[in-house]
Amino acid sequence: MNFPHDDEERATLFKLAGKKSPDQASKIDIRGVSCGKGHFLLIAGPCAVESEEQIAGLAVRLKEAGADMLRGGAFKSRTSPYSFQGLGREGLTYLTEAGRRSGLPVISEITHPDQIPLFAHVDVIQVGARNMQNFELLKALGKTDKPILLKRGLAANYGEWLMSAEYIMREGNTNVILCERGIRTFESYTRNTLDLSALPALHQLTHLPVIVDPSHATGRSSFVEPMALAAAAAGADGLMIEVHERPSMARSDGAQALTPDAFSTLAIKIRQVRKVLETVEG
Amino acid sequence: MNFPHDDEERATLFKLAGKKSPDQASKIDIRGVSCGKGHFLLIAGPCAVESEEQIAGLAVRLKEAGADMLRGGAFKSRTSPYSFQGLGREGLTYLTEAGRRSGLPVISEITHPDQIPLFAHVDVIQVGARNMQNFELLKALGKTDKPILLKRGLAANYGEWLMSAEYIMREGNTNVILCERGIRTFESYTRNTLDLSALPALHQLTHLPVIVDPSHATGRSSFVEPMALAAAAAGADGLMIEVHERPSMARSDGAQALTPDAFSTLAIKIRQVRKVLETVEG
Amino acid sequence: MNFPHDDEERATLFKLAGKKSPDQASKIDIRGVSCGKGHFLLIAGPCAVESEEQIAGLAVRLKEAGADMLRGGAFKSRTSPYSFQGLGREGLTYLTEAGRRSGLPVISEITHPDQIPLFAHVDVIQVGARNMQNFELLKALGKTDKPILLKRGLAANYGEWLMSAEYIMREGNTNVILCERGIRTFESYTRNTLDLSALPALHQLTHLPVIVDPSHATGRSSFVEPMALAAAAAGADGLMIEVHERPSMARSDGAQALTPDAFSTLAIKIRQVRKVLETVEG
Amino acid sequence: MNFPHDDEERATLFKLAGKKSPDQASKIDIRGVSCGKGHFLLIAGPCAVESEEQIAGLAVRLKEAGADMLRGGAFKSRTSPYSFQGLGREGLTYLTEAGRRSGLPVISEITHPDQIPLFAHVDVIQVGARNMQNFELLKALGKTDKPILLKRGLAANYGEWLMSAEYIMREGNTNVILCERGIRTFESYTRNTLDLSALPALHQLTHLPVIVDPSHATGRSSFVEPMALAAAAAGADGLMIEVHERPSMARSDGAQALTPDAFSTLAIKIRQVRKVLETVEG
Repeated sequence: MNFPHDDEERATLFKLAGKKSPDQASKIDIRGVSCGKGHFLLIAGPCAVESEEQIAGLAVRLKEAGADMLRGGAFKSRTSPYSFQGLGREGLTYLTEAGRRSGLPVISEITHPDQIPLFAHVDVIQVGARNMQNFELLKALGKTDKPILLKRGLAANYGEWLMSAEYIMREGNTNVILCERGIRTFESYTRNTLDLSALPALHQLTHLPVIVDPSHATGRSSFVEPMALAAAAAGADGLMIEVHERPSMARSDGAQALTPDAFSTLAIKIRQVRKVLETVEG
Repeated sequence: MNFPHDDEERATLFKLAGKKSPDQASKIDIRGVSCGKGHFLLIAGPCAVESEEQIAGLAVRLKEAGADMLRGGAFKSRTSPYSFQGLGREGLTYLTEAGRRSGLPVISEITHPDQIPLFAHVDVIQVGARNMQNFELLKALGKTDKPILLKRGLAANYGEWLMSAEYIMREGNTNVILCERGIRTFESYTRNTLDLSALPALHQLTHLPVIVDPSHATGRSSFVEPMALAAAAAGADGLMIEVHERPSMARSDGAQALTPDAFSTLAIKIRQVRKVLETVEG
Repeated sequence: MNFPHDDEERATLFKLAGKKSPDQASKIDIRGVSCGKGHFLLIAGPCAVESEEQIAGLAVRLKEAGADMLRGGAFKSRTSPYSFQGLGREGLTYLTEAGRRSGLPVISEITHPDQIPLFAHVDVIQVGARNMQNFELLKALGKTDKPILLKRGLAANYGEWLMSAEYIMREGNTNVILCERGIRTFESYTRNTLDLSALPALHQLTHLPVIVDPSHATGRSSFVEPMALAAAAAGADGLMIEVHERPSMARSDGAQALTPDAFSTLAIKIRQVRKVLETVEG
Repeated sequence: MNFPHDDEERATLFKLAGKKSPDQASKIDIRGVSCGKGHFLLIAGPCAVESEEQIAGLAVRLKEAGADMLRGGAFKSRTSPYSFQGLGREGLTYLTEAGRRSGLPVISEITHPDQIPLFAHVDVIQVGARNMQNFELLKALGKTDKPILLKRGLAANYGEWLMSAEYIMREGNTNVILCERGIRTFESYTRNTLDLSALPALHQLTHLPVIVDPSHATGRSSFVEPMALAAAAAGADGLMIEVHERPSMARSDGAQALTPDAFSTLAIKIRQVRKVLETVEG
């Protein structure tokens, strides 16, 4: 779609996701933590839940390191049918249990409307980039009361992304968090091109919080820290970082995962960057 | 995904969609017509079924004009939840009835696995670009015995597209037709950039037939004829053309629809181009 | 630049390159051959002139095979300073001599305004994709009376491309031929993505002839024939095809070069496709 | 070009620009200021020099506000030949004079090798994005001893960009600073897509300093601050910011220019972000 530059037309298109006033900002509350309106949400965890022990141990480590929420994929959306597809229902159980014990709320990705009942103990439901325009899934999620993390499609522009949020909100669920995860360009050195201009752009267009996933965006663990700090400096409402106890042994996306120690250091730096910005703003 | 340039690795990835020998080509049979292995399939019809009269009248007109199959959307996958979403189940009924009376097999787009029973009288089920990586939908369709038309995603490369075909085929349904419909680039004068190199590329990589949709690709009715002829000249196994009795009155995508008369002329030219190529090849 | 959709604004921008009426079409005359307004120009030759014998022998072969003009690079614009940069002045001499003996007019690429005097016996001067917005070079060429072949930049949209033509024309030289050679996208299986929609688009916007280079666009010799035929079917005013006596021995871009025999076959097919289109149109 | 993932091949390609060891970093010295190896260079000024008074007044204001260097275009590289092309030689004189009086070194863009003598009093010569692969210009600049600021081409990947640096360095001039200024993607809400991953990527590949131009990249003044801070957080060696006394009156690119006051505030925030990073690193 072409972006409407006319304010009135824009208001018609983005009825619910669009800003009504420049200061409007939504805060999404998630079992003890919040995202948006000045609240920064730091999500960490493995690409995929691989075993009960893995996720349980990691959850404790991440909680100590400063994470606010635990991520872990159970239903994986993989390009190839021959790749590891996740542990499914069992993986969700391991994740929610690890979250319960560590005291961290949890987030996991959904791939089919029929899975919604399985997500009863999951705190935030993630819609992956490949399903950003799976409108039937969006409508089904719009009928739940769970916060939804909506990742940007690989080639979606800002207007289309907001329209997908609109699909969810229109069904009654306005708890939507947007997540920038890189777009597809001709540059192949990085997995995708992280588009941080999405932060000021979306903060201008919508009241919904916007977080950033530098792990999937860059595909390289050594790029995660600089891009995470950049996202924080550009006004992100949160970050989602892939962490694995032993990245080289990960069953998926190990090349982009941080070790728990590296995540711990990163969490400190992010807080420092955010503090200085708040001081300067104040 | 990065494309595997190594033959062995490629064979592992594209177990079912990949070519076993340079000459291997699949022919998909669809109630009296065929696609692939020298059989050219000319599909025509409106973007959306708008009424019983519209589709019934148009079907007869298109049959006379040389169409082999009738298209018509009932479950529309629209960027905005506020756009016309199609007539749904009723639309499918009008379409299949129009197909039955005109003698044309029919094709329509599916957007949710639960809709499969409604497609019992539809001859080919279409997966739209936005659902190319809706893997749950692909797996469900792989369990049917219907031919599937798989459109290329807006930013999908050849490898990913074939992987999505692989998802369908792996479940048992090997009747897959690929459809190039333009990719997203920086050029905004056209709706998308039609990538006709996909024809020689896929004919090198896969035995599945590949057709082209110049209507969605260009978004401009005056570009449909030259790009349709180009596709035929580049070896397409078929074409899907949007036709509307009165394009300016269409409820969706009127700007890219041909009139029945323009389609009739185009059908003649396509046959001529194909004939000359066959003669030269022969 | 954003494309002006308003006719009046468009006329202001494209003062000289823009169409004044739907039927306006320019014909560029080049020592006995023509391009545009129904005249099709078939250019063939090696990526680079490699020796006097090579280009002399090839010229005769190409003339017999149906080429209208001989191409051959002498000043090569290579990504790396360590790649073969062409034979320079000497290469131009070999090319013009081969053209003279075979009776074919010649075309070669220029990379610096100071080289203009060396092109005295070259019939058409080519501006490469990387120099499409080298405005100083364009202005200098606008002061000559040579036909200029202006290749599209790797990421140039139609408006910018026409603006570069405007830079040449404004200085007095209106003999400009546009050449589509593929744009840069996320698809990496082909070298570039050949954008054949540029043909109907530019034929709508400008009176200048538009030709296509399928060799550089695809980067694969086996894709050259289908894309060349597609270009002819879509209304191209000509084609530029890379041909090398022994592609595997070429000092640059051998992977995309045809053998003289393959070119000969292609030339026949192109004529056939063009004939059928003319008959149908007539 | 495809990026060489093999270390040895990479060393062969990037003989001079490539890193010899992980810690290697170049510092470019420019009349009292430096860029690289921990030295941050803050460049500010108008898109184009418009008058003697404008640039003289602005220079003093920018010096006070914390700028390290003054920018101002005299030879503008504009898409349309009918747009303001800069004041040329006269503009350069106004710029160097303003630099001399304010005590700021100056930078301006070159568009033709013949202009080199005119840049005698300019401290850094800029090569614009459109000329990144104007190899003749690069070679001529490689024979000077001036620091060169090499902007990334609109669709250049990291490898090609470094190769252009290599063209300059190979002629003897190793004082090259790279400048990321956004790449072309399908997202049209911003002028370009600022690719900040270029910072960790290039810091891994090359010892040359890398700065960022958030003004041209985003094309929107309200996005300049967040993206400038993001660049600083991601490890940029400097920034180039467009500033105009009255942005709405600017003869070019006013929409992306900051006022001097906004720049002053930004300069403070950048220093704060850099200080916290250095503290954390230390």
